[in-house]
Amino acid sequence: MNMQEIKGGVTAPQGYKAAGMEAGIKKSGKDMAMLFSVVPCNVAGTFTSNLVKASPVMWDMKIVHEEKKAQAAVINSGVANACTGKEGMDRCYLMAEKAGECLNIAPSLVTVASTGVIGRQLPMDKICSGIEGLSGLLDDSIDAGTLAAEAIMTTDTVSKEAAVQIEIGGKNVTVGGMSKGSGMIHPNMCTMLSFVTTDACISQPLLQEILSESVRKSYNMISVDGDTSTNDTCLLFANGLAGNEEITEKNDDYAALKAAVDHVNITLAKKMAADGEGATALFEVKVIHAASKEQAVTLSKSVISSSLVKTAIAGHDANWGRIVCAMGYSGAAFDPETVDLYFESAAGKLKIIENGTDTGYSEETATKILSENHITAWIDLKEGVEEATAWGCDLTHEYISINADYRS
Amino acid sequence: MNMQEIKGGVTAPQGYKAAGMEAGIKKSGKDMAMLFSVVPCNVAGTFTSNLVKASPVMWDMKIVHEEKKAQAAVINSGVANACTGKEGMDRCYLMAEKAGECLNIAPSLVTVASTGVIGRQLPMDKICSGIEGLSGLLDDSIDAGTLAAEAIMTTDTVSKEAAVQIEIGGKNVTVGGMSKGSGMIHPNMCTMLSFVTTDACISQPLLQEILSESVRKSYNMISVDGDTSTNDTCLLFANGLAGNEEITEKNDDYAALKAAVDHVNITLAKKMAADGEGATALFEVKVIHAASKEQAVTLSKSVISSSLVKTAIAGHDANWGRIVCAMGYSGAAFDPETVDLYFESAAGKLKIIENGTDTGYSEETATKILSENHITAWIDLKEGVEEATAWGCDLTHEYISINADYRS
Repeated sequence: MNMQEIKGGVTAPQGYKAAGMEAGIKKSGKDMAMLFSVVPCNVAGTFTSNLVKASPVMWDMKIVHEEKKAQAAVINSGVANACTGKEGMDRCYLMAEKAGECLNIAPSLVTVASTGVIGRQLPMDKICSGIEGLSGLLDDSIDAGTLAAEAIMTTDTVSKEAAVQIEIGGKNVTVGGMSKGSGMIHPNMCTMLSFVTTDACISQPLLQEILSESVRKSYNMISVDGDTSTNDTCLLFANGLAGNEEITEKNDDYAALKAAVDHVNITLAKKMAADGEGATALFEVKVIHAASKEQAVTLSKSVISSSLVKTAIAGHDANWGRIVCAMGYSGAAFDPETVDLYFESAAGKLKIIENGTDTGYSEETATKILSENHITAWIDLKEGVEEATAWGCDLTHEYISINADYRS
Repeated sequence: MNMQEIKGGVTAPQGYKAAGMEAGIKKSGKDMAMLFSVVPCNVAGTFTSNLVKASPVMWDMKIVHEEKKAQAAVINSGVANACTGKEGMDRCYLMAEKAGECLNIAPSLVTVASTGVIGRQLPMDKICSGIEGLSGLLDDSIDAGTLAAEAIMTTDTVSKEAAVQIEIGGKNVTVGGMSKGSGMIHPNMCTMLSFVTTDACISQPLLQEILSESVRKSYNMISVDGDTSTNDTCLLFANGLAGNEEITEKNDDYAALKAAVDHVNITLAKKMAADGEGATALFEVKVIHAASKEQAVTLSKSVISSSLVKTAIAGHDANWGRIVCAMGYSGAAFDPETVDLYFESAAGKLKIIENGTDTGYSEETATKILSENHITAWIDLKEGVEEATAWGCDLTHEYISINADYRS
């Protein structure tokens, strides 16, 4: 299959406009974004597994599960609109209503997302003038997509976009996306917002299936701090403007689109892990030759989630005992006495343990490898043919500084 | 029931001797300890739930499950003897054999514990001369117990001892204990070693029952960093020298001894949480009016384990949204819209949320309360009559500093 990475994000596919602006919700910086498709889209979504769901999450769930169509998204950062009771739900609805009014579409076609401090009510005056402002700024340029990606950031240090192009039935089909997420990030779903757009024409049930599977191997495989947020939302819009024959079964076209969506989601997920609060390195854990997919997933997620492993990575210290320890308490069965472990980075690849014990490796070489900003641990179980990859980051002083006084 | 806290630790009950010394395993400081009862004891134990179990854990499990009798414990810090293969198991046996030789008892009566770096082999020359030295130093004084408590420390900043006295059938019965644990601390069991002694006379099956239940509400209710160690061990020795009639059924004597063991274990557990790596505050979470014990346990443990809650405590920030969020992803069912939350410390008690939303509390007062070194969060579910308490600590820069380069 021919897939090409291209520049841009949510506005890369045909028929999508975006905008980002400063609405005065945060102390400074852009804090509101809007996404709009010129025609209604089939929409798919996955949402936080947290029992405590923010109002916008409940709103979007209703749209995805009942309406299955959407044409816009309005997003604010600064205030999460979570734990805000009935008043919070009312304000969420007002946000959709106001956006519908400005965009001349039904409120039920407007998805809503909020991210920021939990427990505060949305400042509706600022939100409403923000929506008016954004509606006037909507633009289909790549730059407009970037402005939107910047406006949804909270503690993120870089904006996160990705886009790819494929061909389906002789038509160019594009998938683009933007996401935010840096803290309160943990599998099922991460503390994150992610908006993915495509101009592919595909039935809503298959669109949802592509997204659900894709989320499992992208966003659900990253962890920054083990905290699953109340606001996690991933929405996938498909407006059909590429002109391909509608995908209604799991044929080659379906596989091609699925691969494109996977690529965008995995790229965005890795960008979130690398930009984890205070992170200095992307930490990738590949479990190979596992007996089952589930075993590989459980082990890789346990290792990237361990505070002790993450602090060792921050210290460039090959403290492999902590990795085996985190595998041991993961709940997955495996034989510690057959495990091989390698560390790899731009500086090289080194076997650290063989059959569960130290290889007598050079600490100096290991430290050199662990001093790069993208480190991979290969864990070979020698049991079967399955594998899984999880992404995390190191745990540094900066994480503490960011979170000890987040609200002030 | 009349229970009195007394001075001392493992040597407080009759017939126990202890010693601690510097054997040269760590770069500096005491690193070996020995505990000895003048007569063989019934012994009970609980061990790490980590699939990867260190050699000394496997050795002690065999003693507790098969022999059910022990007379001594020999402990080293600095090297954990975990992930050391067959060679590690051989060295563990040599430790027991050497101690048996010096103490003139069978090796099968000698329990062994190790704590420190994973993956390194024990330096047997130092271990063996350490055992010889310790055997000559054994003493039944309170001070000797303290020396042993100091010798099992790794990153602990204070040694941890507790002792209580009760009366059973007109006889004074004493329970004493020592423990270590500061990092790699997480429920089931914590990364910890704990040795509890009593002169009570009690059958081994009932002794094990007391310990298993006690561990569930003490050590298993604390968390420092979410990492469950490979070496967690808690042993309870009962030598019968108090002269009480042997406890062979669950009568009042059993209840009295159980309360005493609980008290010692909970005291030691709280000391471990308060001394969590880098901690500046003990953080206690009480879930009250829960529908079931299990619900209360799950919710309280989820809150004390959250990195984001812990960093907020470090910043004296009443970021209550993170507490509700951690309850939400715990897996326990509850109604977020009926929850009340209070913060309490020596500086006062303040209602922060009522029925799931902000009370409009004073941030200044909240910060004052959260600036003390022992903070309690009361979570009222208003559902039933069950409750649970969990203990943790704040997450600070110092935790990162300690763990980023633990091995060097």
